[in-house]
Amino acid sequence: MNSMETHEKNKSWIKTVKIPPPTLQNNTADADRLISVLKRLLKTDTIDIDVSVLGKLPDLVRKWDYNVSCSLFKDRKRWLLTGIKSLHDSTPFTGLAVDLGTTRVVLRLVDLSTGKILVESSLDNPQLSVGPDILARIHFTDQKGGLEQLKELIIKGLNKAIEKLCTQCKNKPEDIHLISVAGNTAMTHLFMGLNPHWIIREPYIPVINRPGLIKAKDLGIKVNPAAEVFIFPNIGSYFGGDLIAGILFSRINRIKDTTILVDVGTNAEVVVGNKNWLIGCAGAAGPAMEGGVTRMGMMAGPGVIDQIAINPDTHDFKIHTIDDMPPKGICGSGVIDLAAQLFLSGMIDIRGKLLPAVCGNKIIKKNGIRHLVVVSAGESATGSELTISQAGLDSLIRSKAAMYTILETITSSVGISLNDLSRFFVAGTFGSFINPVSAISIGMLPDLPPNIYKSLGNSSLGGATLLLTSSDFLEDIDRIRDSITYLELNVNQEFMNRFSAAKFLPHTDPSLFPSVKI
Amino acid sequence: MNSMETHEKNKSWIKTVKIPPPTLQNNTADADRLISVLKRLLKTDTIDIDVSVLGKLPDLVRKWDYNVSCSLFKDRKRWLLTGIKSLHDSTPFTGLAVDLGTTRVVLRLVDLSTGKILVESSLDNPQLSVGPDILARIHFTDQKGGLEQLKELIIKGLNKAIEKLCTQCKNKPEDIHLISVAGNTAMTHLFMGLNPHWIIREPYIPVINRPGLIKAKDLGIKVNPAAEVFIFPNIGSYFGGDLIAGILFSRINRIKDTTILVDVGTNAEVVVGNKNWLIGCAGAAGPAMEGGVTRMGMMAGPGVIDQIAINPDTHDFKIHTIDDMPPKGICGSGVIDLAAQLFLSGMIDIRGKLLPAVCGNKIIKKNGIRHLVVVSAGESATGSELTISQAGLDSLIRSKAAMYTILETITSSVGISLNDLSRFFVAGTFGSFINPVSAISIGMLPDLPPNIYKSLGNSSLGGATLLLTSSDFLEDIDRIRDSITYLELNVNQEFMNRFSAAKFLPHTDPSLFPSVKI
Repeated sequence: MNSMETHEKNKSWIKTVKIPPPTLQNNTADADRLISVLKRLLKTDTIDIDVSVLGKLPDLVRKWDYNVSCSLFKDRKRWLLTGIKSLHDSTPFTGLAVDLGTTRVVLRLVDLSTGKILVESSLDNPQLSVGPDILARIHFTDQKGGLEQLKELIIKGLNKAIEKLCTQCKNKPEDIHLISVAGNTAMTHLFMGLNPHWIIREPYIPVINRPGLIKAKDLGIKVNPAAEVFIFPNIGSYFGGDLIAGILFSRINRIKDTTILVDVGTNAEVVVGNKNWLIGCAGAAGPAMEGGVTRMGMMAGPGVIDQIAINPDTHDFKIHTIDDMPPKGICGSGVIDLAAQLFLSGMIDIRGKLLPAVCGNKIIKKNGIRHLVVVSAGESATGSELTISQAGLDSLIRSKAAMYTILETITSSVGISLNDLSRFFVAGTFGSFINPVSAISIGMLPDLPPNIYKSLGNSSLGGATLLLTSSDFLEDIDRIRDSITYLELNVNQEFMNRFSAAKFLPHTDPSLFPSVKI
Repeated sequence: MNSMETHEKNKSWIKTVKIPPPTLQNNTADADRLISVLKRLLKTDTIDIDVSVLGKLPDLVRKWDYNVSCSLFKDRKRWLLTGIKSLHDSTPFTGLAVDLGTTRVVLRLVDLSTGKILVESSLDNPQLSVGPDILARIHFTDQKGGLEQLKELIIKGLNKAIEKLCTQCKNKPEDIHLISVAGNTAMTHLFMGLNPHWIIREPYIPVINRPGLIKAKDLGIKVNPAAEVFIFPNIGSYFGGDLIAGILFSRINRIKDTTILVDVGTNAEVVVGNKNWLIGCAGAAGPAMEGGVTRMGMMAGPGVIDQIAINPDTHDFKIHTIDDMPPKGICGSGVIDLAAQLFLSGMIDIRGKLLPAVCGNKIIKKNGIRHLVVVSAGESATGSELTISQAGLDSLIRSKAAMYTILETITSSVGISLNDLSRFFVAGTFGSFINPVSAISIGMLPDLPPNIYKSLGNSSLGGATLLLTSSDFLEDIDRIRDSITYLELNVNQEFMNRFSAAKFLPHTDPSLFPSVKI
């Protein structure tokens, strides 16, 4: 699934029109003659032209003999004209899709006429310098000037990245006429300079659910002065626009069969549904989730172990690193592979405990805690051995149990079983790299046929990109926003029972995982 | 007629609401809960909140226990929330009405809740330093930076005047949330920084007919950052928003009987119609109008002669000056009085020529041209005599003939006679002070009973003010804009015949002026 496939020329935000030249009989103003042509084309009765476009309109349309390429966007009931170009201009109108992550921000420059992705880049969220997570940053806004500082950090970081991105593909920031931003509720609030104080305080109230459009220049973003920024709406403090963008990208809201979308990034969010209904729940589910599902391993990058196989007889490790560089660490999907292989080869028991009798001299002790050596000091890029500790394995067991418990809870809340799902979309910076077979082996994901699983990559960025490529999706966003039911995860006795049962490999009830043969 | 009379509290742009407090069950965002209350109240489905209001919303609504006074405005199909205040705030939301004249700019600060006019002031249009009239200023924009300079002049002038105005009534510019601007097409274009080049070149095309709303801060106006500026639409290059505001103020578009509105300012504009139709024409009608109808006398002010009576037997002059100060000149309405009295007392003939036999030693010669002494050197404030020259009288005759010809032309174009008019509104800085009996005596205005005439004062400012006081008038403005027929004044043979016939006092056909007895 990629935005290119879905691009339809006549749904593009760019429209080419011929304005009737003025005469003494038709001496309507230039802007009003252009608007009247666009009204007919777009079947709308309200089109507003940004005043910065009006300024240059008369001379340009005369120079171009009244043939104009127009960059448009729709704001609920009215259309906005954000730019004009000559039909012979070789530089395209561009749009910028932004996945505004707490940790990582990803940008994508798109040709608005063709829907083609021109270039992509990412940067650490510059707000990391203030605090590593949402909570720390929201607390920081209680300090005088804190909110302004956080807003400035992200806007300045974006401006720098935009300039670099444009230089890479020989475009100009002034050619960016539309920006679509998907992020969690706290990040989008900080991006808009909105006070996030009440987001983390009962009853957890955002400033706004549907921010809609804001002028880029009002946010301090240095692109075309008429450019509009669309910010994906949120459902609440803990269910952000990033997930709505993800749903849009997965299309689970358009599919007849019931499917599931699991987004594992900094948080884990789950949505189940079909074209008739959607139910979602988000992340941190109280004490059971302490440590989260994602604090496993390091960020993927060259030299990071992402795949592991263990010979069940010799217990030799066969590792794969990204870019085949010498190993320097292990990422989340690698950790899941490792745990699955340790379990399948009998090196850990069903509680995830390292078995010295089997592991032999692969076990060492550091500060009194058992570690399993994955790569010896001689073979690693760092010069020390790469290990996984018993504490790390325990944490993984809790995380995978929490994930499985959430999946069971949300499906049973709508009276279906995990086996009823016809498709299982996994998205997110971490989730996309998970090997489903390994995740099934440890009981993190349900025992469905592997071809049911589909990795979406960065679905939040994907959704933000889709919006740039077609006017078809604005209504979808509103419909998703308004139709989704938010399931509050209560950590009650039933949840804890499920969680306890899931803390074994793959599960206390092995009949749930028939494919996992030990 | 004044805006106070028409104010209805429930039509005010200010609404007071109670937002439901949030709960765990209703954890909709603050902005969205406020929007939902306003949607019900205003019976609309789109309300946008300015991002600068969003910033302070959460803390303020909690502090105010969710009781909020809201400043709103409507932009075609959507409502805009431009400000919030506590119910206990003693400083009002204010609005600014602007009559953007070519020569003079008049400002009025209005309490948006009550519709009360707080204070009024005026200034010379600072663009006068660049050029005295529209043509000179438009030519100036062809110079590099000329347009920017003209825009800056008016915006800076307004900012200074706004600050002074607010200080006078102890309000702050930040409390201004709405600005309504009525001006001719060229002046509003320069105000928006839009290129007026094509306005004066065939086929006379403005950049835009319906500018709608622009953020005050985008124009550089220093008021509340969320404030919106409404610019009255124009019909074309020669029929501006000032006249649409004037029609709005006169209400001729709401009256069943056919009436007329004549606006005599820098230009003369005429509109005839009723609630079913409107027809208008504007000002400079080719060579016949050279000199215009308004280049008579000086601007009204203390010491300026505004009324004159002449004793028919002694030919003694009885003058009245503004504020009863020693006479220093004569204003337009004074010139009309003077001409009427000179004619009625036999001191000029039916061609407007001074009769030495009657005037006696009141006639002097300057540079070979006859002048009539109105005030002797000894009695004047200037130390020299105040006079009117034969050339001045000739020009007045041409002007009054042009005015009468336009009135005849527009009424006959719709098949009615001037006698069919049930009301005759006279507006404009000059027009409002004309004494109808004098204007009838010289045949400038038709011979209707004096009580048919109604002076409106500055109707452009009046219309701009009306919009601030009630949400009722936005639709009227659109309706006026879209329904009015623009009559192009062709200076053809019929026009010239009428003009020639009108160049006598009161007219070559005295039966048209039965009340004028010589």
